[in-house]
Amino acid sequence: MNQRILLMSSSRKDNLGYLEHADAQIHALLRHEPRKVLFIPFAGVTFSFDTYEGMVKPVFERLGYALASIHHSADPRRAVDEAEAIAVGGGNTFALLKRLYDADLVDAIRAKVQAGTPYVGWSAGSNVACPTIRTTNDMPIVQPPSLRALRLVPFQINPHFIGGKPAGHNGESREERLAEFLHINAPEQVFALPEGSALFSDGSNGTVLGERHALHFTAEGQVETLREGETFPLSRITGPAGMDGWQDFRA
Amino acid sequence: MNQRILLMSSSRKDNLGYLEHADAQIHALLRHEPRKVLFIPFAGVTFSFDTYEGMVKPVFERLGYALASIHHSADPRRAVDEAEAIAVGGGNTFALLKRLYDADLVDAIRAKVQAGTPYVGWSAGSNVACPTIRTTNDMPIVQPPSLRALRLVPFQINPHFIGGKPAGHNGESREERLAEFLHINAPEQVFALPEGSALFSDGSNGTVLGERHALHFTAEGQVETLREGETFPLSRITGPAGMDGWQDFRA
Repeated sequence: MNQRILLMSSSRKDNLGYLEHADAQIHALLRHEPRKVLFIPFAGVTFSFDTYEGMVKPVFERLGYALASIHHSADPRRAVDEAEAIAVGGGNTFALLKRLYDADLVDAIRAKVQAGTPYVGWSAGSNVACPTIRTTNDMPIVQPPSLRALRLVPFQINPHFIGGKPAGHNGESREERLAEFLHINAPEQVFALPEGSALFSDGSNGTVLGERHALHFTAEGQVETLREGETFPLSRITGPAGMDGWQDFRA
Repeated sequence: MNQRILLMSSSRKDNLGYLEHADAQIHALLRHEPRKVLFIPFAGVTFSFDTYEGMVKPVFERLGYALASIHHSADPRRAVDEAEAIAVGGGNTFALLKRLYDADLVDAIRAKVQAGTPYVGWSAGSNVACPTIRTTNDMPIVQPPSLRALRLVPFQINPHFIGGKPAGHNGESREERLAEFLHINAPEQVFALPEGSALFSDGSNGTVLGERHALHFTAEGQVETLREGETFPLSRITGPAGMDGWQDFRA
């Protein structure tokens, strides 16, 4: 396969500005080619799509890539079909997936990326690239018709990964949440990405980007650390049964 | 109306033991009456229902109430119909709601509690008492048929409320998550409960229990603090349109 999929944990790392940490990762995806990027701002909730485009466009332009948001398009399906690259920003994962379904873009984006169009997502934009959004950290503020998502990779991403919990707080830690996911859904697998980390998929192999590494959860209580530059064959990943024909999920 | 509904933020407060902070709140609901409590352990994921019952039963017995878990019952619907009180424990809200739907208990519990049977929930057990589970903090590890829940009260609960975010972390704060909820779903309203706080509903009025107070979010950016013992008429709360006939929710 000849795919180019970049899934980043977050738009921010430490106290850096918006996507400021991500230059090398974005260039690894777009390779300095003169591509025009179609931006999908649907995860934004408390600010306008214009505002969101205004945050993202300067980042890509500074790196040498043109960018326009899909909300300007009278025919979003056609905008996807004609896109030279697709960028899906963070925000609320449930709002993002619902709006993708409402605009009938799920299958169109999937087909386009499977055919080789580069895809970059961060945070919610990485969650929707997975088989489902069942490993999002976000609040389910709206109900999409299904939690099934773009299915560009066979594994789940948990973005903004951070271990432990605040002192004196008794809500679940991230590790406990992922243990619950794996308890029910193993042998499905999860890559947890600390802020600043990313995964790149070429359709055959996955590669870890970013010096914060990635945590690979293969079953409840089983986790290994993958370091920057480490590569793994996607064929080794157990996704939901039958990634292509797959219609539903367990439990 | 003559209802008795106790919605607690959490099973733990600070470093106290399981439900150890909750004696007065549970007695406020059950009034030292000799009621046998039906426990619903469906939010537990990484441990058995037997284990869960073993954590909860001694707490209620110490307070003078018998308790048995529904998972021992060959006919769970009948167990609900015959319950003298219902307790729904915390864990994963999505797993809890899915199992309630799978066992066809949603309407049965709702009818029973509306008819006056006392209900106590904590954490996920408070989330499912609301119109929907759209203000849960939990990971959507499984997909219930709907996010629509028991609808015992007209407002949403956000349990385990904690403000701010860890230093250097860029995921959304709880305040940002609730702002997203309200941006889309206002005039629906949310009560955020710090650990140790609770709300009591008698079907006509709500009352805040616990010295940590409750935060009442009435719209994006609009929040007021309700102190221990403060009471508000439920008629003042704007729930999802038509609590009874209500079939779907906005987005």
